[in-house]
Amino acid sequence: MNQDELKQQVGREAVKYIRPGMVVGLGTGTTVHCLVEALGEHVKNGDLTDVVCVTTSNRTTRQAQSLGIKVEEIDDVDHIDLTIDGADEISDDFQGIKGGGGALLWEKIVSNYSDHVMWIVDESKLVHHLGAFPLPVEVTPYGSQHLFTKLARRGYNPTWRMLPDNSDKFRTHQRNFIIDLHLEDINDPFALHEELIGMVGLIEDGLFLNQVNDILVGTQDGPKFLHARP
Amino acid sequence: MNQDELKQQVGREAVKYIRPGMVVGLGTGTTVHCLVEALGEHVKNGDLTDVVCVTTSNRTTRQAQSLGIKVEEIDDVDHIDLTIDGADEISDDFQGIKGGGGALLWEKIVSNYSDHVMWIVDESKLVHHLGAFPLPVEVTPYGSQHLFTKLARRGYNPTWRMLPDNSDKFRTHQRNFIIDLHLEDINDPFALHEELIGMVGLIEDGLFLNQVNDILVGTQDGPKFLHARP
Repeated sequence: MNQDELKQQVGREAVKYIRPGMVVGLGTGTTVHCLVEALGEHVKNGDLTDVVCVTTSNRTTRQAQSLGIKVEEIDDVDHIDLTIDGADEISDDFQGIKGGGGALLWEKIVSNYSDHVMWIVDESKLVHHLGAFPLPVEVTPYGSQHLFTKLARRGYNPTWRMLPDNSDKFRTHQRNFIIDLHLEDINDPFALHEELIGMVGLIEDGLFLNQVNDILVGTQDGPKFLHARP
Repeated sequence: MNQDELKQQVGREAVKYIRPGMVVGLGTGTTVHCLVEALGEHVKNGDLTDVVCVTTSNRTTRQAQSLGIKVEEIDDVDHIDLTIDGADEISDDFQGIKGGGGALLWEKIVSNYSDHVMWIVDESKLVHHLGAFPLPVEVTPYGSQHLFTKLARRGYNPTWRMLPDNSDKFRTHQRNFIIDLHLEDINDPFALHEELIGMVGLIEDGLFLNQVNDILVGTQDGPKFLHARP
């Protein structure tokens, strides 16, 4: 199986964890795209029609709505039972980097207000230590050049996230910028997170620490379930 | 002298600290308005014409430009020599609450990148402990109702900052919301700041800790200079 097939494998597997009547947080990205497709099939077959979803990006909203899945605004639901999202890197101790797709802030907010969080990934995302994947940080545009300089001086090898055609800086849903930190190896993700969120103008980083409960990994031998923490 | 006259007194006094060629950060609010007026008079008289200002709100930009003061974008200057700003509350140990005007994020960013910071206030802003003034926090709209509930559960008495006519929620320059925390007394502002900025979706709070170097206070006996820290 290639990477796309592994993503489809976990997308189809993850939908089994969605039960009737749940409020489900949907992440963003190619693996979640497969999950939403699988959920759409259930809804089409008259199953899971009362599931309500909260999305973390406009593109997930569009996909879900096009398949007849109920979508509500996060501030219109009083709780989220389960969030299923992808991840860009997961360490041995089940900490993660997310935000390759640029939706890290909404993803972290949904994750934070969810009773249960599941990540679905292909096996290429499992690593020993975090850091080979560039760590995204979302920043307020105002003063961001000064923040960029500060991050560079600290040796964090920042680069601006650009639009695919490189014509301008990428903007998040909130019209913020993303700076990617090329760290190679993150020794202490907790200390780094504290340092980063203490920087004025830095809104959120892509370190998802102690966030995930369960992980579904797509492998050549079929989906593998990892329990991270209660 | 009434409060307006005290504000004019410190506004006029503060302009003496601006020297030719400086890059000056300008805060926001009624006291800064008096400073900008005084600076405008100097520029009109052919004095301080090479001063470049960085502003923290569109209204300060408009006022400064209308008086012939040079204004540049924060990311187009490589440093800020001096920032002069108001404050809503200053404690005995020179910590502050700012953001009554809703510009706390830009104000904190400018303050953070300034070589020297001066606050100008009338004497009513000096208090023993912080907290009688509601502490503003700037929050991402997405998920903010959940954050509001969380702040309420922690006993922080949150209220939404509304537009003056109460028709809708106030929005900052970045289109974020402001929640005001009615705390009455803040025992440990450092611990509170750490807790607040650790909350996902909370972008920045109005606690300005170890930020100010000097304070000019308008009093009935004339402007009083307080040195807070080097």
